[in-house]
Amino acid sequence: MVKEFNDYRTRMNEKILAADNLNIKRLYNLDTNTYKEGALTVKTKEMLGLISSMVLRCDDCIRYHLGKCHNEKLTTEELFEIFAIANLVGGTIVIPHTRKALEYWDELITLNK
Amino acid sequence: MVKEFNDYRTRMNEKILAADNLNIKRLYNLDTNTYKEGALTVKTKEMLGLISSMVLRCDDCIRYHLGKCHNEKLTTEELFEIFAIANLVGGTIVIPHTRKALEYWDELITLNK
Amino acid sequence: MVKEFNDYRTRMNEKILAADNLNIKRLYNLDTNTYKEGALTVKTKEMLGLISSMVLRCDDCIRYHLGKCHNEKLTTEELFEIFAIANLVGGTIVIPHTRKALEYWDELITLNK
Amino acid sequence: MVKEFNDYRTRMNEKILAADNLNIKRLYNLDTNTYKEGALTVKTKEMLGLISSMVLRCDDCIRYHLGKCHNEKLTTEELFEIFAIANLVGGTIVIPHTRKALEYWDELITLNK
Amino acid sequence: MVKEFNDYRTRMNEKILAADNLNIKRLYNLDTNTYKEGALTVKTKEMLGLISSMVLRCDDCIRYHLGKCHNEKLTTEELFEIFAIANLVGGTIVIPHTRKALEYWDELITLNK
Amino acid sequence: MVKEFNDYRTRMNEKILAADNLNIKRLYNLDTNTYKEGALTVKTKEMLGLISSMVLRCDDCIRYHLGKCHNEKLTTEELFEIFAIANLVGGTIVIPHTRKALEYWDELITLNK
Repeated sequence: MVKEFNDYRTRMNEKILAADNLNIKRLYNLDTNTYKEGALTVKTKEMLGLISSMVLRCDDCIRYHLGKCHNEKLTTEELFEIFAIANLVGGTIVIPHTRKALEYWDELITLNK
Repeated sequence: MVKEFNDYRTRMNEKILAADNLNIKRLYNLDTNTYKEGALTVKTKEMLGLISSMVLRCDDCIRYHLGKCHNEKLTTEELFEIFAIANLVGGTIVIPHTRKALEYWDELITLNK
Repeated sequence: MVKEFNDYRTRMNEKILAADNLNIKRLYNLDTNTYKEGALTVKTKEMLGLISSMVLRCDDCIRYHLGKCHNEKLTTEELFEIFAIANLVGGTIVIPHTRKALEYWDELITLNK
Repeated sequence: MVKEFNDYRTRMNEKILAADNLNIKRLYNLDTNTYKEGALTVKTKEMLGLISSMVLRCDDCIRYHLGKCHNEKLTTEELFEIFAIANLVGGTIVIPHTRKALEYWDELITLNK
Repeated sequence: MVKEFNDYRTRMNEKILAADNLNIKRLYNLDTNTYKEGALTVKTKEMLGLISSMVLRCDDCIRYHLGKCHNEKLTTEELFEIFAIANLVGGTIVIPHTRKALEYWDELITLNK
Repeated sequence: MVKEFNDYRTRMNEKILAADNLNIKRLYNLDTNTYKEGALTVKTKEMLGLISSMVLRCDDCIRYHLGKCHNEKLTTEELFEIFAIANLVGGTIVIPHTRKALEYWDELITLNK
């Protein structure tokens, strides 16, 4: 699941950037820069990106930020506290996305054992 | 489709609850209690849950409430009146979810013949 | 609040319809027809319209359906059960709209005493 | 992907219309009429339908309007300018839908070579 | 209404930019560039920005793009065709925003007579 | 602005709780508990609540979490990094809410000088 997601994401992003639309390239660039260390740590920023993706219910965005949060050593206990806030603020419609998120997280952990 | 949905849902919900985050457990508990008979019947509450899921465009939530509505003896004619309101209030972006909802409903009916 | 809302709504709807865009007129017409008695009662349909407006967080739509629900003799106890489902499914972001909804409902009740 | 999407869409729409709910039939009818040539060209209206589907993040709606835009001779360069606005207004949560949109567009172009 | 909106918008945008967050400045800059003439005309892009704002139901964004569309000589007849698509795709929850949009548009026209 | 918001919020919440709907009371209770110190600090949780409210575009929720973040000693520089992520993920439709958020934040700071 992790590999399939990353491969598709990389392949299609390359196609999008190859079209050479300057504004899209700038937006993608900004997307990278905004999550860089600043007054807030990368880990905090990735948690913010993750919960935003959860309440907006974008499974692919959730997967992307789960990968980044995993890199930043987010613990499963911390993840569940993010889940709790996301399900509370965004409501029970976030639950199906939480199920998929946990499935992906479990695979991330297994892959990195 | 029905069995696959229910199995995945049950399996992942168990994993989520196993993590023992108290606030998530409370939210899940509240989710069960809120749909219980009160001043409104369970059938009415499930219709309310269904249309909320439709206008918020959550396929898995729609499936869940379709199953519950079917248990409460909702008729296909009543279902289409819910579809009509959901497509009107939520707009034509609800149509693809209506297609999937009807497909699932048809399977629910076939399974229970 | 009730009178001001209804006056503005009526005045602007008349302006919109006066522009004579056929598709908009048809949509407005459909809006009226969809809530008419069918397999479901008008009261049930108005509850469905209300909760859809709540989870989609449209204050003016909420007010409109509160007015209709009041005409259909919805009780305050029933209303709170709708609130409970809306706040659960749509999450705590629905709370501010619930506050405004209750304020409007209280005025509807006072006006009709 | 194109054929599969169109077949499923046609088959389920026929089922929905077969249920003979008058308000749903009117809404589907209105859906057809609203995109007809008027003060705005069909091409402009389809671009408006496409971007609405993108910012509301409805993959099936995006596919439908991509097919229509392709019929109206939208160029890939124009498409990317729509993508740029959609990703800007709707945010980076629109990116995964842009990836799928481009994949579908590429298939539309290949099929029509 | 027009002057008040523009004044507040200008004043607060200046405050936001004064904070000197580089990523926000880049996003604002991108916002300006994305609507510039390209394969699509400024008028078409502004119509795309307007309908996106309508289906996402952001009154201030609608006002901003109405002002731009007015500069680009959008006619009232064209505007109503955009309204029709927005109300169809986004559903009747867009109607209250359409009322406010028309009110603002009328003031734009009166101011420019 | 701060006092008016808090007074209205308190007054209406009391009215809602006075209705004695058990499920709503539980949800409100859960709302309080979910933001308590756990594996994540209160400050981190409030940042998560704030950005969720921003991307979901709920001005009253934003105000509530701004107040909490201010209590937790969030700096203006940190706040702008949250703004940057919210505007990026949620798109430019978040900008009008960012303007209002900054206005409220400025008042919070002035009041506490």
